[in-house]
Amino acid sequence: SVTLYGRVDLSVGNLKDKVKNTSTTQMFQGGDGGLTTSRWGLRGTEDLGGGLKAAFKLENRFNADTGASQDPYFKGESSLSLTGGFGEVKLGRSTTVYDDVRALGQKFDVFDSAFTASSNGVFKGAGGDYASRFDNKISYYTPVMGGFYAGLDFAFDEDATKSADRHALKLGYKDKAFEIALAHQNEKDKGDKYTALAGSYDFGSFALSAVYNHRNGSAANGDDNEYALGVTVPVGAWSLSAGYAHAKTKKSTAGAKDGKAHGFALGATYALSKRTRLYAGYRDVVVKNAAGAKTKDERLYAVGVRHDF
Amino acid sequence: SVTLYGRVDLSVGNLKDKVKNTSTTQMFQGGDGGLTTSRWGLRGTEDLGGGLKAAFKLENRFNADTGASQDPYFKGESSLSLTGGFGEVKLGRSTTVYDDVRALGQKFDVFDSAFTASSNGVFKGAGGDYASRFDNKISYYTPVMGGFYAGLDFAFDEDATKSADRHALKLGYKDKAFEIALAHQNEKDKGDKYTALAGSYDFGSFALSAVYNHRNGSAANGDDNEYALGVTVPVGAWSLSAGYAHAKTKKSTAGAKDGKAHGFALGATYALSKRTRLYAGYRDVVVKNAAGAKTKDERLYAVGVRHDF
Amino acid sequence: SVTLYGRVDLSVGNLKDKVKNTSTTQMFQGGDGGLTTSRWGLRGTEDLGGGLKAAFKLENRFNADTGASQDPYFKGESSLSLTGGFGEVKLGRSTTVYDDVRALGQKFDVFDSAFTASSNGVFKGAGGDYASRFDNKISYYTPVMGGFYAGLDFAFDEDATKSADRHALKLGYKDKAFEIALAHQNEKDKGDKYTALAGSYDFGSFALSAVYNHRNGSAANGDDNEYALGVTVPVGAWSLSAGYAHAKTKKSTAGAKDGKAHGFALGATYALSKRTRLYAGYRDVVVKNAAGAKTKDERLYAVGVRHDF
Repeated sequence: SVTLYGRVDLSVGNLKDKVKNTSTTQMFQGGDGGLTTSRWGLRGTEDLGGGLKAAFKLENRFNADTGASQDPYFKGESSLSLTGGFGEVKLGRSTTVYDDVRALGQKFDVFDSAFTASSNGVFKGAGGDYASRFDNKISYYTPVMGGFYAGLDFAFDEDATKSADRHALKLGYKDKAFEIALAHQNEKDKGDKYTALAGSYDFGSFALSAVYNHRNGSAANGDDNEYALGVTVPVGAWSLSAGYAHAKTKKSTAGAKDGKAHGFALGATYALSKRTRLYAGYRDVVVKNAAGAKTKDERLYAVGVRHDF
Repeated sequence: SVTLYGRVDLSVGNLKDKVKNTSTTQMFQGGDGGLTTSRWGLRGTEDLGGGLKAAFKLENRFNADTGASQDPYFKGESSLSLTGGFGEVKLGRSTTVYDDVRALGQKFDVFDSAFTASSNGVFKGAGGDYASRFDNKISYYTPVMGGFYAGLDFAFDEDATKSADRHALKLGYKDKAFEIALAHQNEKDKGDKYTALAGSYDFGSFALSAVYNHRNGSAANGDDNEYALGVTVPVGAWSLSAGYAHAKTKKSTAGAKDGKAHGFALGATYALSKRTRLYAGYRDVVVKNAAGAKTKDERLYAVGVRHDF
Repeated sequence: SVTLYGRVDLSVGNLKDKVKNTSTTQMFQGGDGGLTTSRWGLRGTEDLGGGLKAAFKLENRFNADTGASQDPYFKGESSLSLTGGFGEVKLGRSTTVYDDVRALGQKFDVFDSAFTASSNGVFKGAGGDYASRFDNKISYYTPVMGGFYAGLDFAFDEDATKSADRHALKLGYKDKAFEIALAHQNEKDKGDKYTALAGSYDFGSFALSAVYNHRNGSAANGDDNEYALGVTVPVGAWSLSAGYAHAKTKKSTAGAKDGKAHGFALGATYALSKRTRLYAGYRDVVVKNAAGAKTKDERLYAVGVRHDF
């Protein structure tokens, strides 16, 4: 009734900061220069009869290069849910439905990894730093009905003195090869609203994913328009992928956060088994401010190994 | 030889502070507004032959609503013990025998949960904040002999410059339906001594538990007299419970901590299975100072779910 | 594919500081006054075919007397490795090959435990506080070929502004009863270089281990010459052991860290089973400064129990 699982991801590579003119060769924990952050967790389900199930998931994230736990302890997920014909109700900390849709838009974009340009530098560089997980969250996910599905998140602010609850919504459609979804996330405490449209299509010999995102931001943060595109080609035990991302920020107070960012990434994985992969990745990201000066010009490459257990 | 176990408890409810005049709707980790604090742990026993067994238990407590670990890491328990015909000797961190007796007195008092008025507000509000666990503890528990049992805790202060060891003792009797026990705990470092008499009786169609506690406190803290009573009624998969608690503090220096506290609680659980329960609870606690002014007037209610694995 | 394992070690004893003239009776977590630090971990291997294997190990260390986790979270080890006919390549945090050789030299020296005088007071007291584990490390271990083996560690400094990588090397030979190894460790960031020669011989009725270590230290730290010797005698379920260590520091700036240290230890374990041991240990260490005054004069004894799971 309880499954112990996890993943260790480590790589060696180089990060070049062309603005500061520094170059650092290092070992990366997966989340900084690999496929994914290392983790271990506990999960399980219980059949309650009548189609009803209880399920839990507790997932720690850690930096495998130093052995340090990330914070909070169960950063990845800390949830309890009831599932039935009605769908699923989940309580606790877990990814938002908006993040699910962002992940869909990066599904074939350099393995939705630390190399993926959109989420690592381009979108963040231009301001798109939405919360990927909510604490104190109650979620409802519909079953998939005729291909259609929806999900709703509501997170309590737990503050008697203000109204700063967070919420998110997704609507999607999927069949075997194709999926498209729309999501909206409102982080009242920050004054930022995010809207994303994402899709993926697996043509067999290759697969595509894309995402368009708009942030209706606070006066200080300004508004963003962002898009990303990725392609993955399987070749035997190899998987080759490339992605491009672009973002533009405008209307921030006095233009302080206005600017543009773009980046691209290349990656390859080689499956030693279902559970173990070798990989190499390359990412190049440039961020410019309103005056056109580079505030970030970063190049990362690394080779590594990822093992699931 | 090692068992991985745990519990996730989450609820949604409201906490109203009638002194500050605030009301907060929120998600509670079980320990703040549910049945119990969430936990995961490792435990095991080894048969050493000749009736001797070694056993260990390591239990982490965490806030399931945010994924944060409580501190210290194995807050619930971190112990190693040897068990035989002589009873059990246990080393490390674990609950005190005094806490065991307090738990007996709340056994049928709104599920000895976050809703139970005695331990949450009434006893604490009036000063009864004893240490429920000792670090650096060596304990001896007798076997149950003709229904009688005893237990002894000794915890090292580990300080060469003072004498501040802590100790506790319990004596009890139990049969199938009935249990009664007396306990004393001395926390030398605080200058507080606690004495509790507790009992429970399961009549089948309903069950009662009660506790009387006296704190012979330091001059600054004063003395407490506390009692609590609880009743639980099983009705099919339902379990209904109510409890009341009262406490009075006197003789603190200049009456600074003198006062009275009382509270009551109501709760219901519905068993979806042996391992999974839905629940609802209500708790109301009032604390008054020596002048009769309310220093705490709190009302909590929540509905939630608890799952064991 | 994943194994959950661990160890709990607790003891009760006394630490006497004859310089401060204090004596503290306390419970020790194993690492301070027992056989070993308590731990729990996850490990596993995957057969990748063609003689290739993937393996991981994640090991937390904790203080069993209080339940506190040591820091970083996976302090013991956080690694991923690939093993084959070529040997083993390991990434992450783990013990250095120099530490392996130091461990060889203490293999039969009071159980390479908290009682062992060399690593606890004598070598550290005189300055030999090398890093036993490296973060951000890539290691290569040869297979054992005709009894010979070698290992190499390289740890990235991950700092673009300086050159402070750490590295270590070992060369050894072993057969059934005998093992000898030479190691060198360079901690560029500290300016300290360590060289150790260690060996062990199991004669059956008794076993010996010994280590000689030289630190070519920074100007501030000075140079060390250290040696230790240990003997262990098995007698049925008992194991009796004794050890002696000596260290001398010289050439530190203005003699500030110059001095001598020596110490001895005695210990006994009784195996209740393969996994559970009772033990008793005694350690006496004296450290003198350049002027011959005692800066440390410490005596430890404890009795305890260790349980593996």
